[in-house]
Amino acid sequence: MDLAALRWLDPPEGPAIELLDQTRLPAEEAVVVCRDVPALADAIRRLVVRGAPLLGVAGAYGVALAAWTGADVPAAAAVLERARPTAVNLGWAVRRALRAYQKARQEDPLDTERMPARAALAEAERIVAEDAAASAAMASHGLTLVPQGARILTHCNTGRLVSAGDGTAFAVILAAHRAGRLAKLWIDETRPLLQGARLTAYEAAREGLPHAVLADAAAGSLMQAGLVDLVLIGADRVAADGSVANKVGSYALAVLARRHKVPFVVVAPWSTVDLAAPDGASITVEQRAGEEVTSFAGQPVAPGGSPAYNPAFDVTPPELISALVTERGVIWRPNAGNLPLTGSRPGPMDATGPVGGPATAASVERWGL
Amino acid sequence: MDLAALRWLDPPEGPAIELLDQTRLPAEEAVVVCRDVPALADAIRRLVVRGAPLLGVAGAYGVALAAWTGADVPAAAAVLERARPTAVNLGWAVRRALRAYQKARQEDPLDTERMPARAALAEAERIVAEDAAASAAMASHGLTLVPQGARILTHCNTGRLVSAGDGTAFAVILAAHRAGRLAKLWIDETRPLLQGARLTAYEAAREGLPHAVLADAAAGSLMQAGLVDLVLIGADRVAADGSVANKVGSYALAVLARRHKVPFVVVAPWSTVDLAAPDGASITVEQRAGEEVTSFAGQPVAPGGSPAYNPAFDVTPPELISALVTERGVIWRPNAGNLPLTGSRPGPMDATGPVGGPATAASVERWGL
Repeated sequence: MDLAALRWLDPPEGPAIELLDQTRLPAEEAVVVCRDVPALADAIRRLVVRGAPLLGVAGAYGVALAAWTGADVPAAAAVLERARPTAVNLGWAVRRALRAYQKARQEDPLDTERMPARAALAEAERIVAEDAAASAAMASHGLTLVPQGARILTHCNTGRLVSAGDGTAFAVILAAHRAGRLAKLWIDETRPLLQGARLTAYEAAREGLPHAVLADAAAGSLMQAGLVDLVLIGADRVAADGSVANKVGSYALAVLARRHKVPFVVVAPWSTVDLAAPDGASITVEQRAGEEVTSFAGQPVAPGGSPAYNPAFDVTPPELISALVTERGVIWRPNAGNLPLTGSRPGPMDATGPVGGPATAASVERWGL
Repeated sequence: MDLAALRWLDPPEGPAIELLDQTRLPAEEAVVVCRDVPALADAIRRLVVRGAPLLGVAGAYGVALAAWTGADVPAAAAVLERARPTAVNLGWAVRRALRAYQKARQEDPLDTERMPARAALAEAERIVAEDAAASAAMASHGLTLVPQGARILTHCNTGRLVSAGDGTAFAVILAAHRAGRLAKLWIDETRPLLQGARLTAYEAAREGLPHAVLADAAAGSLMQAGLVDLVLIGADRVAADGSVANKVGSYALAVLARRHKVPFVVVAPWSTVDLAAPDGASITVEQRAGEEVTSFAGQPVAPGGSPAYNPAFDVTPPELISALVTERGVIWRPNAGNLPLTGSRPGPMDATGPVGGPATAASVERWGL
């Protein structure tokens, strides 16, 4: 399958994984071809490929690549899982592809016609198909939360570049636009790596969305001016108590949104929910190199000797989250009660009722603002 | 007088104002020489010279420059006042120099030995001397609020580059360092123009302060981790009700600080207090060009057609401000009652009592957290 950001190359061109180099967008559309797992793990670490759902897809294809090239598949899977610690989808998808490979290998120890490698590849393709379907379902559930004339604030990048479909939060935004409900998309630039300015604005411009970019620090000023009706973000991991790890800066938005009675909604596939992580404290937050902060577009911006504090993510506590949208439906005020319940009972949840828009007494109660 | 960032050049080199070009720091220490008021106003708009106290100094010297070069002095003063709308010190200092010029001109209509121009210059130099003295007084009052082992978070740039002394918030930080109380200075990079990363880190590195730079969006993560004891910022204008206009992002820090019971302290000379502005809504917030957000060092970071929302400042409401430090002392929880009172009764205020540090029942009450 061909995604916007990732392509599996069969022999004779491959086996290989071709990635759109997201570090170079929007200036140029360059590709990176990974012919083995070390190259892919390096691309994952460098954020050539990124975003929770797509990291899962890339990890699963990575297992297939290891199998196809005759590498030590369990070892390769371990390397891939460790490449980035916070996005739960990566490990989840890698383990799925590895299990498919191991099952096929058990059934066919002689490796007739490379069945184990084909099984891993088929599992990767199933993950892609599921991700596309999940994206469509999230868009449809999420749309029920968007009022007419919505001015939506988002952070980081959650669209086609990270998904086999329209993405997570961005899929809802796109659905709102198509339904004629989007008045404005406010895009946090998302320092240090500017995924908002570089990638989300690029996707918004391509889709013709009414949008504007802002410095992350200006979001409070927007809310003070009453210009935000809804915050929509993605997630890298959701703990069993409803804590959400997402791109650093999400927590500050949640705190500001609560102060201004603006609903704060997280959109993520169910594979992002990690019921094995009891709470926010149990989520490992990746610390990245200081140079991402002290340099900008390859140029130093701080004095050479200045160290930096550079967590890639932060964790928003559940009491600040109005709703979690997954392909299974809308989970109001996610918590240690309703999240595990949703896990045990797949299928659509209640997503009815007019919500969003200027806070009324009823909506404030529903949103928990 | 020679400041770090501004120098008056007498004839025969001048009359002129030589500015350290703050847009090019820390990469290079270049100067811009302004030989007339249009050139100076342009430098002010481009942020070659910036920061509330220094804008006042530059404006006063600008009036002297106009008088010295035989320009229309009241017209030049009006141009300078309008160059940036938010920092109250600019208009205040320009009007002081203009009044000194006009008084001398009335007393000496024949312009014997350029007495009116000399009077404007002398007034500019008085403003410089007062600013240096105010800076020292703010440092000493502010130091009483800093606990041992303080981890202080600051935003934007408030040091020697914007002052005739050690600055405003930075003067307190420097005093804390000299008193052995500073464990860490956390520096918000301060997008879009990176005054924190470029200028404050440069000043911190020169002074040997233990420091680290962070993306503005990471401040919430720092506070969640319990790594901030005190937020110290400057101000561009303080309204009579205690509302504080400062670099965009200050408001979000104040909201986060309150959530985490971290004292939020504003340090500014009394000339920043504008008792004629009744409240935050009456403060004009400068909107700057979108390119400051969508490009960096001349390179685009967002797609060409993407507009940006780029307010230079935001306004923090008084209920989020723990204390205002001026050269007159510490004003606890500034409001419409105590601010005008301080204006009518110059002189030190109460600045006693142990404060700052981990919030205790007593300190929480005192700080109003």
